[in-house]
Amino acid sequence: MGSEHTVKSFDEELRRLDNMVAEMGGLAEVQLQSALEALIRRDIEKAAEIVANDRRLDHLEAEVDQHTIAMLARRQPMAKDLREIVGALKVASMIERIGDYAKNVAKRTGAIAEMPPVPSAQTVVRLGGLAQQMVKDVLDAYLSRDVEQAKSVRARDRELDALYTSIFRELLTYMMEDPRNISACTHLLFVAKHIERIGDHATNIAEIVHFLVTGEMPLDDRPRQDESEMTIVTAHVPSDEE
Amino acid sequence: MGSEHTVKSFDEELRRLDNMVAEMGGLAEVQLQSALEALIRRDIEKAAEIVANDRRLDHLEAEVDQHTIAMLARRQPMAKDLREIVGALKVASMIERIGDYAKNVAKRTGAIAEMPPVPSAQTVVRLGGLAQQMVKDVLDAYLSRDVEQAKSVRARDRELDALYTSIFRELLTYMMEDPRNISACTHLLFVAKHIERIGDHATNIAEIVHFLVTGEMPLDDRPRQDESEMTIVTAHVPSDEE
Repeated sequence: MGSEHTVKSFDEELRRLDNMVAEMGGLAEVQLQSALEALIRRDIEKAAEIVANDRRLDHLEAEVDQHTIAMLARRQPMAKDLREIVGALKVASMIERIGDYAKNVAKRTGAIAEMPPVPSAQTVVRLGGLAQQMVKDVLDAYLSRDVEQAKSVRARDRELDALYTSIFRELLTYMMEDPRNISACTHLLFVAKHIERIGDHATNIAEIVHFLVTGEMPLDDRPRQDESEMTIVTAHVPSDEE
Repeated sequence: MGSEHTVKSFDEELRRLDNMVAEMGGLAEVQLQSALEALIRRDIEKAAEIVANDRRLDHLEAEVDQHTIAMLARRQPMAKDLREIVGALKVASMIERIGDYAKNVAKRTGAIAEMPPVPSAQTVVRLGGLAQQMVKDVLDAYLSRDVEQAKSVRARDRELDALYTSIFRELLTYMMEDPRNISACTHLLFVAKHIERIGDHATNIAEIVHFLVTGEMPLDDRPRQDESEMTIVTAHVPSDEE
């Protein structure tokens, strides 16, 4: 059994799969973009729309699942074709999760909008911009099977993690300065964490692109390092003597 | 082409796949259990071991991936068999993520152990116990293809979410009472969120069990509802008049 497929409609089916993944990717990008806009404008209505729109991504993922299972059953593909199909299945589930995080950002917008503004919101949106560019580039890399572009996305995750860690410290400091900031800052912390996770998923997709093109996962360790997990910020509490 | 397989060794390969998933599940359970113990005992060394052990889960998931791809290629399964294989692939990736969350809990233990104890740590560990039971039960349900047990896990996610939401409020209150609690409480908040996510993944696995047995995903909406995302806790700040 050769691994080459000569039936033209198999290519068509693969293309259809790519198109479905591309549609999901485009939708996830829009969701993230809108979530960041809603956050910065404190737009609760828009946030609610984003939450509602997430269902489309869930449905699209279910369609990709069905399509891949049907292709596996009907076509019994080998080697590279099989990799393509399993790759699409994995990428679709990662895009669905990126959409979930965009939805989670939107969900927090309601609570954040009802509280006094915190200066860090702008920095969080900048973090979101970085993640958004990673998502955009990794989807391009996936659709063009571009390993170099995928590598560059993977490398950029370090930058995202560093900015996230500094936001973490900044938000903790605001909380310590004034307890009235605690609620808003806590929600912003989670928003920042969601965005950091979007970067992780973009990195995961970059690794799948590497796998699709080369047949192997990247061997070097992931650059990912979120140092906020070890971060302690000490509150300066006036002692009785002061 | 019939969907029944008569070759005995296909069953053996499926069994091997189940065993691999069972091994992953057992390891994830132990990781979660150890992470909760390390958290309550403020045991930094144990926490570091858990972080290191997570690699085994990553490797096991890669093995499951390879084995499933090889099975798909060699066996060209249809219908229920195909569902079993794709199901194992998905369950393995969910278990890997449960392991990731256990690792994330362990990572925060270092920071938490260096700060004064917060009363909520006990409640967070109780939340962990609930999640642990869900993971254990859903793995049993998966291995015995028990839809009823899977349903009961799915239903319990509501309880987990409710406890998580109350922990969220409690931790915010501690932060507002004393800024010295902010660092520890923030890390505990993330620990609680990781545990809540473990419950979500147990629920995802429960849905796969439903799919494996019935051929369809459960139709009713997910019980999942984390209300902490909308939670605002207002700080009582003494005004100038007080």
